[in-house]
Amino acid sequence: MSLRKMRIGVLGTGEVGQAIATKLVELGNEVRMGSRSRDNEAARNWARSNGSLASHGTFRDAAEFGEIIFNCTNGLYSLDALKSAGYENLKGKIIIDVANAVDFSSGEPTVIMPEGKSLGERIQEAFPESKVVKTLNFVSYRLMVNPGLLGGEIDMFVSGNNKDAKQLVTSILKEWFGWRTVVDLGDIRAARAMELLVPLWFRLWENTGTDLFGFKVIIKK
Amino acid sequence: MSLRKMRIGVLGTGEVGQAIATKLVELGNEVRMGSRSRDNEAARNWARSNGSLASHGTFRDAAEFGEIIFNCTNGLYSLDALKSAGYENLKGKIIIDVANAVDFSSGEPTVIMPEGKSLGERIQEAFPESKVVKTLNFVSYRLMVNPGLLGGEIDMFVSGNNKDAKQLVTSILKEWFGWRTVVDLGDIRAARAMELLVPLWFRLWENTGTDLFGFKVIIKK
Repeated sequence: MSLRKMRIGVLGTGEVGQAIATKLVELGNEVRMGSRSRDNEAARNWARSNGSLASHGTFRDAAEFGEIIFNCTNGLYSLDALKSAGYENLKGKIIIDVANAVDFSSGEPTVIMPEGKSLGERIQEAFPESKVVKTLNFVSYRLMVNPGLLGGEIDMFVSGNNKDAKQLVTSILKEWFGWRTVVDLGDIRAARAMELLVPLWFRLWENTGTDLFGFKVIIKK
Repeated sequence: MSLRKMRIGVLGTGEVGQAIATKLVELGNEVRMGSRSRDNEAARNWARSNGSLASHGTFRDAAEFGEIIFNCTNGLYSLDALKSAGYENLKGKIIIDVANAVDFSSGEPTVIMPEGKSLGERIQEAFPESKVVKTLNFVSYRLMVNPGLLGGEIDMFVSGNNKDAKQLVTSILKEWFGWRTVVDLGDIRAARAMELLVPLWFRLWENTGTDLFGFKVIIKK
């Protein structure tokens, strides 16, 4: 599959949103970065720095604009952000959920899973007419769009209920972002396994002193 | 460090306990397998099949016997098993905690963490005079004592509060079991990150059709 250029909404103005939105523009896509308020400074600066394909607006503006949507908001507030983006604006669309809901208050980063449910699942439940694909949430924003920084040896996972959506996202990961191995973990409940990698991520970050690491699954041939 | 032979208690008679106990005997250690009752059939059969270095008894018998203790019980009942082994029999000793507390009732394997605390932490809290080291819990029992089945490329983690204990366990993992890379993730709270790998483990098992896989952390040089 060779991907055509698209209009893409990126929700969130942090390191993750900026890294993904910038890469998407570099690839020739039209990207609108969404945030809580229309005059968000980070979003305005990003749009100003990234040429005519880059624009910014509210969550709603970005969701209306995008044919597909990246959720790069803080996972603790993602459901609120997506609700303010508007159910109708997300209907039928792929939501690529990169977010993590992490509580740092105890000192040990804790993934929030009300009733055992991952953020990816909760988004899919709240937006049943959208196609949620969980991915990228367990690597540094620096590797998300450039895994080749490590020599391209690391694996990425996807999970979600819609096969076509996972297929498109897999193509985006491979053709646009440079991932070589993308493993389909199954339905959206597998987002639990992906979000629960975050505590290990933080321990390894502390331990290695760098955020430039990833995981390779070695399977018996 | 070259390890001397030891007396070792292995709590639990399942696949994990059998694999570890058998390997330890093969290496020339005296091993007592412990279970709830003295006449446990699996333990009796194991002892009968493994020669004069192998014996069996209650959790208490095995804990009294061992200079170090492997907890290979079902994590949902590990605290009960260790309590019945006796506080005084575990005092001052290393408890190598290989167990996972997993609830399968929802269909999606769910790691049980009351108040956010891992099994490893809860054991350390219940036995403050023992030295708990969490390890091995996120690979198949077949790989625990023979990671070379995959070519030896995969990583093992340890966590725990006592550095000397982690050092000894690291030597056991390397010299006896054949692990090449053992990464110290820090204090026992890191057992959370290790236990939370279990949902991913089950998804990959389902996905790949084999339990012969492990993780390699690729770090930017």
